[in-house]
Amino acid sequence: MHFHIMTLFPDMVMAGLGTSITGRAIAKGLLSIEAVNIRDYAFNKHNSVDDYPYGGGAGMLMQAEPVYLAYQAIEEQIQKRKEDTEAHEAEGAASAQPKRTRVIYLSPQGQTFSQEMAQELAEEEDLVLLCGHYEGIDERVLEEIVTDYVSIGDYVLTGGELPAMVMVDTISRLVPGVLHNDVSAEFESFQDNLLEYPQYSRPEVWHDKQVPPILLSGHHANIEKWRREQSVIRTARRRPDLLEKAELTADEKKLAAEILREKEMEEEEE
Amino acid sequence: MHFHIMTLFPDMVMAGLGTSITGRAIAKGLLSIEAVNIRDYAFNKHNSVDDYPYGGGAGMLMQAEPVYLAYQAIEEQIQKRKEDTEAHEAEGAASAQPKRTRVIYLSPQGQTFSQEMAQELAEEEDLVLLCGHYEGIDERVLEEIVTDYVSIGDYVLTGGELPAMVMVDTISRLVPGVLHNDVSAEFESFQDNLLEYPQYSRPEVWHDKQVPPILLSGHHANIEKWRREQSVIRTARRRPDLLEKAELTADEKKLAAEILREKEMEEEEE
Repeated sequence: MHFHIMTLFPDMVMAGLGTSITGRAIAKGLLSIEAVNIRDYAFNKHNSVDDYPYGGGAGMLMQAEPVYLAYQAIEEQIQKRKEDTEAHEAEGAASAQPKRTRVIYLSPQGQTFSQEMAQELAEEEDLVLLCGHYEGIDERVLEEIVTDYVSIGDYVLTGGELPAMVMVDTISRLVPGVLHNDVSAEFESFQDNLLEYPQYSRPEVWHDKQVPPILLSGHHANIEKWRREQSVIRTARRRPDLLEKAELTADEKKLAAEILREKEMEEEEE
Repeated sequence: MHFHIMTLFPDMVMAGLGTSITGRAIAKGLLSIEAVNIRDYAFNKHNSVDDYPYGGGAGMLMQAEPVYLAYQAIEEQIQKRKEDTEAHEAEGAASAQPKRTRVIYLSPQGQTFSQEMAQELAEEEDLVLLCGHYEGIDERVLEEIVTDYVSIGDYVLTGGELPAMVMVDTISRLVPGVLHNDVSAEFESFQDNLLEYPQYSRPEVWHDKQVPPILLSGHHANIEKWRREQSVIRTARRRPDLLEKAELTADEKKLAAEILREKEMEEEEE
């Protein structure tokens, strides 16, 4: 999978994505991440890419043309790579209609990013992420190139760089081969719409706090049962909104209802 | 305001936060950001901070002790700075009970981060952000030091670093003096629970697309009216969930209802 990040701060983006799992996946050739500097496509001698908004208002806007030129350069590179790949494949095969590359504009105006959206986007071969700065980007180039508007949450950031990094990290983990199988199993619990159970490591006693004895029992079925219960309890206490979407057994539903009742009583006492 | 970020990847965090608005605020002395390497508090000769989870399961956990020692070092530094400041102030003043520093653990288990939460946290003098990695952190040290569990959204990331950077960026913008006043006014529209109107910059015609003539009229009241309408239309189309919380006039409510009806009809046709 190839990520193309259009930004005014390419160094910041690359520094934030080279570590840990993403870095290893790049080294293994499973991913590529390139940060394209929009400023390289400025068309005036000052190298500026921003201008005042028509109609007045605070701050500066990114202009349409440099954004468009940067996008074109990326798209050409993608099409060229695809043609090269096809040339290597069976020559007689009918060439498929070139698929439109998805271009995501990171913006508080967008649809809220979620694990489900990440799953869908992980199936793309290329993904272009456009990072706004200043007060935003000239609407006309957005109309022309953007296919998806995505927000990572209801809060205001300085630019699209951190959201782009968040999306790349989340989506990368879902690309086959990036995570070891045993690790990828881990976050299924989140996809079940339940929060993770508490975890403990050595030593057995730390600051007078004991590891729950069941975890030392070696009885796997009981441990699984305890962990699942802890997940239900925790979800009911901290994120009851997730419970509706979770698949619970009758016993688990009863447990969740009890916790919710307890929580209500505690809140009344306060 | 002082941010203290507990992490295994201090370079990544600092690289992502030195640019643009945050960087200028640090230079002006309005903010300080330090990344504390938890690995510096490892207590074994291999410098390792992780171990297997009790009860089995995939991956490794961060152990309680290094996390606790790193936290203690930060807390001591904070208390020392406060004492120094107080020593400079009136000596006779009764010393207030030291306030517990808020320690935020970045976790999908947490309460969802929002602009309102950012506003509240921006009033703290110190904020400690704890970034998990591997499969998580030993529950006992979380119980002992964490005051708030925060998630930036319903998706799974490799670690807490990007979420911590997102929080620092959002909160920093709300610290008095960090943004120019005219810029800070900009995102009020988001706090009104309406999305931003479209913006345009030079040239007047780009790719055959004209800037809406009203923005060239110089008539400020009409421009404001048009922009507000565009915000309502856009919110109704893209984020109808926000409309409930928005304060709309009777006319605006009518406009929003029309757009929602239009959208419904379009969806039925598909």
